Amino acid sequence: MTKTRKIFLSEKEMPTQWYNIQADMPNKMMPPLHPGTRQPLGPDDLAPLFPMELIKQEMATDTWIDIPEEVLDVYTLYRPSPLIRAYNFEKLLDTPAKIYYKNEGVSPAGSHKPNTAIAQAYYNKKEGVKYITTETGAGQWGSALSFAGSIFDIDIKVFMVKVSYEQKPYRKFMINTWGGDVVPSPSELTESGRQILAANPDSPGSLGIAISEAVEMAAKDPNTKYSLGSVLNHVLMHQTIIGLESLKQFEKTDDFPDVVIGPFGGGSNFAGISFPFIRENLVNGKNIRCVAVEPHSCPKLTKGQFQYDFGDTVGHTPLIAMFTLGHNFVPAQIHAGGLRYHGAGAIVSQLLKDKLIEAAAVEQLETFDAGVKFARTEGIIPAPETCHAIAQVVKEAEMAKKEGKSKTILFNFSGHGHFDLASYDKYLTGQLTNFSVSEEEIKKSLDEIASLR
Amino acid sequence: MTKTRKIFLSEKEMPTQWYNIQADMPNKMMPPLHPGTRQPLGPDDLAPLFPMELIKQEMATDTWIDIPEEVLDVYTLYRPSPLIRAYNFEKLLDTPAKIYYKNEGVSPAGSHKPNTAIAQAYYNKKEGVKYITTETGAGQWGSALSFAGSIFDIDIKVFMVKVSYEQKPYRKFMINTWGGDVVPSPSELTESGRQILAANPDSPGSLGIAISEAVEMAAKDPNTKYSLGSVLNHVLMHQTIIGLESLKQFEKTDDFPDVVIGPFGGGSNFAGISFPFIRENLVNGKNIRCVAVEPHSCPKLTKGQFQYDFGDTVGHTPLIAMFTLGHNFVPAQIHAGGLRYHGAGAIVSQLLKDKLIEAAAVEQLETFDAGVKFARTEGIIPAPETCHAIAQVVKEAEMAKKEGKSKTILFNFSGHGHFDLASYDKYLTGQLTNFSVSEEEIKKSLDEIASLR
Repeated sequence: MTKTRKIFLSEKEMPTQWYNIQADMPNKMMPPLHPGTRQPLGPDDLAPLFPMELIKQEMATDTWIDIPEEVLDVYTLYRPSPLIRAYNFEKLLDTPAKIYYKNEGVSPAGSHKPNTAIAQAYYNKKEGVKYITTETGAGQWGSALSFAGSIFDIDIKVFMVKVSYEQKPYRKFMINTWGGDVVPSPSELTESGRQILAANPDSPGSLGIAISEAVEMAAKDPNTKYSLGSVLNHVLMHQTIIGLESLKQFEKTDDFPDVVIGPFGGGSNFAGISFPFIRENLVNGKNIRCVAVEPHSCPKLTKGQFQYDFGDTVGHTPLIAMFTLGHNFVPAQIHAGGLRYHGAGAIVSQLLKDKLIEAAAVEQLETFDAGVKFARTEGIIPAPETCHAIAQVVKEAEMAKKEGKSKTILFNFSGHGHFDLASYDKYLTGQLTNFSVSEEEIKKSLDEIASLR
Repeated sequence: MTKTRKIFLSEKEMPTQWYNIQADMPNKMMPPLHPGTRQPLGPDDLAPLFPMELIKQEMATDTWIDIPEEVLDVYTLYRPSPLIRAYNFEKLLDTPAKIYYKNEGVSPAGSHKPNTAIAQAYYNKKEGVKYITTETGAGQWGSALSFAGSIFDIDIKVFMVKVSYEQKPYRKFMINTWGGDVVPSPSELTESGRQILAANPDSPGSLGIAISEAVEMAAKDPNTKYSLGSVLNHVLMHQTIIGLESLKQFEKTDDFPDVVIGPFGGGSNFAGISFPFIRENLVNGKNIRCVAVEPHSCPKLTKGQFQYDFGDTVGHTPLIAMFTLGHNFVPAQIHAGGLRYHGAGAIVSQLLKDKLIEAAAVEQLETFDAGVKFARTEGIIPAPETCHAIAQVVKEAEMAKKEGKSKTILFNFSGHGHFDLASYDKYLTGQLTNFSVSEEEIKKSLDEIASLR
């Protein structure tokens, strides 16, 4: 065998610091505002929800933050993750492009989410926290935090969007297997939940509602903190281990990415793979395109507005300056549940505003088409979220073919699709469609948050 | 970090030959017999079912068989698999024993099964075969062959035990995603299926019936061959890549196994990890214990009889000299579907008869107890089959503690439990029980095959 598919790092080669892009951004983000006073948040405002070390990280200006020994140790349960050259997929696409993917599906929870779940559980544990609440949509985040809770012996309570709770029992079982507790949201356990249920007893729930419940429960109990799986600065920073490893792995090849691609929900996996490469552009004069890929039907980056908005439905979270469709926007029922969110993290939004990253939108059917092609050549079955990145890879590869130019593409294989096979079945049997969202819908939703501008 | 959890091999370090234990066995197996004539089988008898190269391997006497370049290339989609030191699990068990596991769950299909599926699909393709039939119980084997079929462009038809087909739709979807076709068995597509349905239209099916259907369909069509996922010599040999890699990986540590443990269904994963270590005993004077672990409720190794028996229900397969409970034995509805089989492969049976391996039986509840403990410390959730090995590991580790002696344990993590989480849910909510099988039941089933002795 002359070719090598998988580029491994040894555990000793694993990066020992996270990269904090806030230090290198030419324009800093606008400050998060208190939901009540609308004044810039101080650390004390966040103290009821987060341990102090994470609040410090949220506001940190250092370029590099040491990863604690204990976190590195737990990372080695599955990290470093392999960087893989997708030779078979390249051949199918008949493209001169070289395609590499970083396989974050190797974690016990099956996605990149444990990279921050482990860090967050560790810092909470260190500060004596016994309980953590969180929300989950399709279940990737809830299971990742539950896994981390089992390692650090912290009780995890997950508010799971009710419709997903009913449709995806396996994610619930997974959370339980790691000892976590799952409640369908809206629930009777919180004021927020009771309010929603009073208005609509059959509410299917939403990520925004589940966040409201989890935040409320944490805020009311001094022994309980809250944890979020995306959007926030410290969460995105924990994920940079993905891109930092990739950089080291490319040193072992003769290639270097021209394009870096990640699916985009709140920003965590995209940030994870791309921020270290954006640093190469900002600090080392490189010219790497970084492309965030969102669903056509939830187009906050390509059609949303940059302004202050809430992260949740009820309005418990701080106001964040971000690309948003409005916190009342209800995304279509696409199967990539992790991408059904109205807003984008503050850092990623600022980077997009400053044209330091690109955004692209793809249709549901082309994502599954790309996912099936990938599975039938590379073996591994991608999550519907990951299929968004792959659909964009196909476009880039076809462009390379048209231009007759080789280029190197890196994408984040954010997770496997083992719990999403029902959506593959629907695709293969012709039961899936694309979803469109009209300009009017978006305008209406944005008008509703006009007062927050 | 001073310790290393995961021992990797590079792709270039991957073994390039399979190990054929037939060459080193002190007592050779008894020959398989034709189901009609009861005379020893010749290659021509197998030609309707298998490509000639696999028939040669089935009867090979060479110690080492070259792995074709094309097979090695596909192996690198996921191989070499990591050898992992289970530090966290050791700590929980408070044992002086060192516990290592070989993670075969990293394959696209989630188990060790692709190791032979890829080889079988390759040899079939090389001899011009367009269609392959097979059977599957819980779905591990059917999905592995379907994955291999997608890589080598061969149409796969899977007869899936009807009760599993209905209970485990995700395995069906997975097979379809790779382009394979699945039919619930018994079906109307074969004489065997129609016979069973005529007698019992509501038959839930069984592995034995599904084998009968798949064999019949292949035998009747010259363009179609049949493929089996365990039991046969060539299948077990393809799996030796597991143990051969492990040997190379242990060279990179200061440890060497005193005990090697694998769950036992038909023999393929157990053989895969243990045969290269048995060679160390036979050829290099080592003294490694190799333990096959079966369910208490399907105790062919610990309570079965060594004699000729059929591999299927209807009696289409050759007669094999093996430890068996009788081909009419119906195992209890344990969740480790891959271990619900009445017989053991010929080689493994001969090795047990010659006391070159050990057998142990464990109860369903202790397997899930071990599996949950493993998941909560090591992260990864094991398949119910794999939990059988882990339950035995717990016993060995406790013995080491009692004796105050360190020893090194290696077990085969044959697959992950992502599609078995419903059984974890049942376990965690107290809905699972142990199953016993009485001496009378076993005697009755063995009496029914008295004429085959």
